[in-house]
Amino acid sequence: MTAIDEPDTRDLAFFDASRSADVVNARMGADISPRFREIMTILVEHLHAAVKEARLTSEEWMAGIEFLTRTGQMCSDWRQEFILLSDVLGVSMLVDALNHDRPAGSTENTVLGPFYVPGAPHFENGTNICLDGKGEPLIVRGRVTDNDGKPVAGATLDVWSTNDDGFYDVQQRDLQPENNLRGVFTTDHDGRYWFRTVKPRFYPIPDDGTVGKMLAALGRHPNRAAHLHFIVAAPGFDTVVTHIFTPDCRYLGEDAVFGVKTSLIADFQHVDDLAQAEAAGVANPFWTVEWNFVLASKDEVERKRAEKTS
Amino acid sequence: MTAIDEPDTRDLAFFDASRSADVVNARMGADISPRFREIMTILVEHLHAAVKEARLTSEEWMAGIEFLTRTGQMCSDWRQEFILLSDVLGVSMLVDALNHDRPAGSTENTVLGPFYVPGAPHFENGTNICLDGKGEPLIVRGRVTDNDGKPVAGATLDVWSTNDDGFYDVQQRDLQPENNLRGVFTTDHDGRYWFRTVKPRFYPIPDDGTVGKMLAALGRHPNRAAHLHFIVAAPGFDTVVTHIFTPDCRYLGEDAVFGVKTSLIADFQHVDDLAQAEAAGVANPFWTVEWNFVLASKDEVERKRAEKTS
Ligand SMILES: [Fe+2]
Ligand SMILES: [Fe+2]
Repeated sequence: MTAIDEPDTRDLAFFDASRSADVVNARMGADISPRFREIMTILVEHLHAAVKEARLTSEEWMAGIEFLTRTGQMCSDWRQEFILLSDVLGVSMLVDALNHDRPAGSTENTVLGPFYVPGAPHFENGTNICLDGKGEPLIVRGRVTDNDGKPVAGATLDVWSTNDDGFYDVQQRDLQPENNLRGVFTTDHDGRYWFRTVKPRFYPIPDDGTVGKMLAALGRHPNRAAHLHFIVAAPGFDTVVTHIFTPDCRYLGEDAVFGVKTSLIADFQHVDDLAQAEAAGVANPFWTVEWNFVLASKDEVERKRAEKTS
Repeated sequence: MTAIDEPDTRDLAFFDASRSADVVNARMGADISPRFREIMTILVEHLHAAVKEARLTSEEWMAGIEFLTRTGQMCSDWRQEFILLSDVLGVSMLVDALNHDRPAGSTENTVLGPFYVPGAPHFENGTNICLDGKGEPLIVRGRVTDNDGKPVAGATLDVWSTNDDGFYDVQQRDLQPENNLRGVFTTDHDGRYWFRTVKPRFYPIPDDGTVGKMLAALGRHPNRAAHLHFIVAAPGFDTVVTHIFTPDCRYLGEDAVFGVKTSLIADFQHVDDLAQAEAAGVANPFWTVEWNFVLASKDEVERKRAEKTS
């Protein structure tokens, strides 16, 4: 290589606002993880581009530093304010979409949310997981199949939701019975499951921290559209982390974490029939929803991801 | 307005990976600060673009969440890890460049750094601020003028640097005398200042935190090129926050926070002359540097900023 062909690295030794991201990225070492190099190059480019486009003032930059600092300092074993930030900025949904791109017809994912607790009790189909007696009774039933419509027997459905006051059991350890509105069900030989619970209602995400302040400044409310959480898993299939949404919630079109996908809005039926209620073991009137999950195989999803990346 | 002219806001109610930033930004309220709307719109667009471009995996996203969380949790009254992060990613220098764009010929800014302590003692010109006796003596002298070369009398120069072991006094409260290598000087009627100190040496930024780990993963060292810090202020002038750099430091072309600008590299002269040393009150041999500061008026800088923004 002649001198004239050598890259002009010397110029990148000193800061220059007109190509500041290049100066920063040129500083990376030769022997680092290629993937880390790729990610950091992209992040630094977009970070610098955003600062320039906004022509950020020193005071705005300092406000940003303080926001990030306080957000980190709010995090504890039971509170993850940065995940909440990612959620309300739509980043959590975006990352999920990039990583769980499934064949058409498969059940879509949505956000996990901060209130999932692993290790909920396993129950027989039909069990009522509402332990505090509040709310309108709801019967949930359906099937789990693969993309060809073949039943998936032995699939587990990990289910959780808020009580009728809009709180998860773990948010009200002193007020709610342990494992209120949580349980794991297993599909039968025909892929069928059913359980009893109560109709979900909307609730606010924790808004007493930095993210709540940001939402207020953005003119946004902190409410999530009413939903039931599901994690549906079976060997060989891409685990589905999802919700089903009630169609009548006032926040359906403005979920605070962008979790609503039209494919996840279910048809909740109101039933006023004493005989049916008695047969199902619920008070009258009550609600029913029939919901089928379609699982994509791990291979299918991995193939789609690899195609997009290459 | 007819129905057909109405914006298609309904479509933006539900998450869609292909235009995820638009979905998030469409959620902002009508009555919010226009400037906050502008900044957040830009940040969300670049954040989503970066996630998509990198095709971030769920594990990488989680690593990012944990990095930000630990970075916030490292911050305390005496440690600001997010400012350090901004520094090593070149963002601090970029924000400074956007906000202190001065007429050609004016002294340029560089990073403030985390070790500035307001309220250092005021000294007569000529005072030796090295209180621990370590290092090679250095005499600094020069003038402060405006852009027309007119002396600025009564300008203050707030000066600080590490001792010869590479630590600021506040990093070694038990080992160094209080206010070691710190002081405020004032220019005379002719804009002149002078003081005695020691030749600065390179030192590492604090690298025992998340930023240090990130630098290591990037194949970068944490060292700053040897420098003296200055804050030069006078009524009516844009305050200069800057360094002067020694030309012979091995890290001059690879300062960890991109603080080096070629206009800030000074000519340090080595002097071996007993008579001169005695006259100046320093040990022989010693170093001298002559450095003039050129201040831009506040009006000039504000005008430049307004031009660029409009
Ligand atoms: Fe939830
Ligand atoms: Fe420094």
